[in-house]
Amino acid sequence: MLKLYYAPGTCALASHIALEEAGANYEAIRLSFKDEDQKKPDYLKINPKARVPALVTDRGVLTETPALLIYIAQSFPAAKLAPLDDSFALGKMQAFNSYLCSTVHVAHAHRMRGTRWTDDAAAIESMKKKVPQTVGECFALIEREMFEGPWVMGKDYTVADGYLYTLTQWLGGDGVDISKTPKIAEHFRRVGERPAVRKAVEDETRELKSAA
Amino acid sequence: MLKLYYAPGTCALASHIALEEAGANYEAIRLSFKDEDQKKPDYLKINPKARVPALVTDRGVLTETPALLIYIAQSFPAAKLAPLDDSFALGKMQAFNSYLCSTVHVAHAHRMRGTRWTDDAAAIESMKKKVPQTVGECFALIEREMFEGPWVMGKDYTVADGYLYTLTQWLGGDGVDISKTPKIAEHFRRVGERPAVRKAVEDETRELKSAA
Repeated sequence: MLKLYYAPGTCALASHIALEEAGANYEAIRLSFKDEDQKKPDYLKINPKARVPALVTDRGVLTETPALLIYIAQSFPAAKLAPLDDSFALGKMQAFNSYLCSTVHVAHAHRMRGTRWTDDAAAIESMKKKVPQTVGECFALIEREMFEGPWVMGKDYTVADGYLYTLTQWLGGDGVDISKTPKIAEHFRRVGERPAVRKAVEDETRELKSAA
Repeated sequence: MLKLYYAPGTCALASHIALEEAGANYEAIRLSFKDEDQKKPDYLKINPKARVPALVTDRGVLTETPALLIYIAQSFPAAKLAPLDDSFALGKMQAFNSYLCSTVHVAHAHRMRGTRWTDDAAAIESMKKKVPQTVGECFALIEREMFEGPWVMGKDYTVADGYLYTLTQWLGGDGVDISKTPKIAEHFRRVGERPAVRKAVEDETRELKSAA
């Protein structure tokens, strides 16, 4: 059985959602970042990068959200979570997911993970100040240039939708006004109503409550 | 015919190499970042992110290195540049490429592109100082945990090899001693001897010289 290692509030939710959308038989295992579970020896054997998500399969471990999303889509083709038979359409979806992980998530990370890139406290504060601008610019670009509608890639829901939903959740904390990107705001509401998304979000929230 | 927009010294070289390895019929079009070609209206119509690479296909434009690499591998299956028929092996390759774009390239980018994340000159300087450490840690992790050998993914050369080669080139400028990762150092030398890689590198270098 697949095992997904996640921590609440992280990008692992995108893979959690994809597993639910796929109807997969899987176990979701919660890590507490507060307790630094991700840096403990047992977890470093699973993912030496000390990050989530990690997906344990019967052939080994996969990491990195864009890789997990395409793997889940390929493993459960009946769920039609990606344009698997069209290399150009798949390339567009991969480009979108890659932009989220390498630019949008990175812009967001400068709010809480500045120590990755500098040891200077004043520099970390100055990075935080720019997050509303940088994340806001990313979402404005997505709204204007990438979002096809009604779903990210057009007429079909794909794993990219759950991924965008996951990062859209962070806008409030990042100081970005979601109403400036009305298509993404409406998408966020609509994705949030999907049963698979509600299930994944509730799983993560419930476990968080019981752990509190 | 495919058109690859690139700038010398950027990660676009990974896609340039992949096109050569694939035996593709393509045109490589050089942008000068010094002249800010990437911000000019004609190019923004191709890639509104104002970045390279961009690959113009007969169906539209693709961007983001991991997306281009898998698209090129899928478009030229005879070149066997990715494990296309094995979703787990493909997932491992995608995870590697995703780590390069979202963590390794980002660590490197704090040396020259600090203005993306802060407007404060002192903060930009402090980011630069940490680059040897952060990039060095990434390469140490690749050497220890990810690099299968003799190629990145094991016995077969894939697009991930040209991508790792591209980022390995930057180590000197980033202040990282390549001899501390001997497997990667040897891989860099070996990849650099491949005819397709020499051709792509020489194309970019020659155009640079003629433009000088």
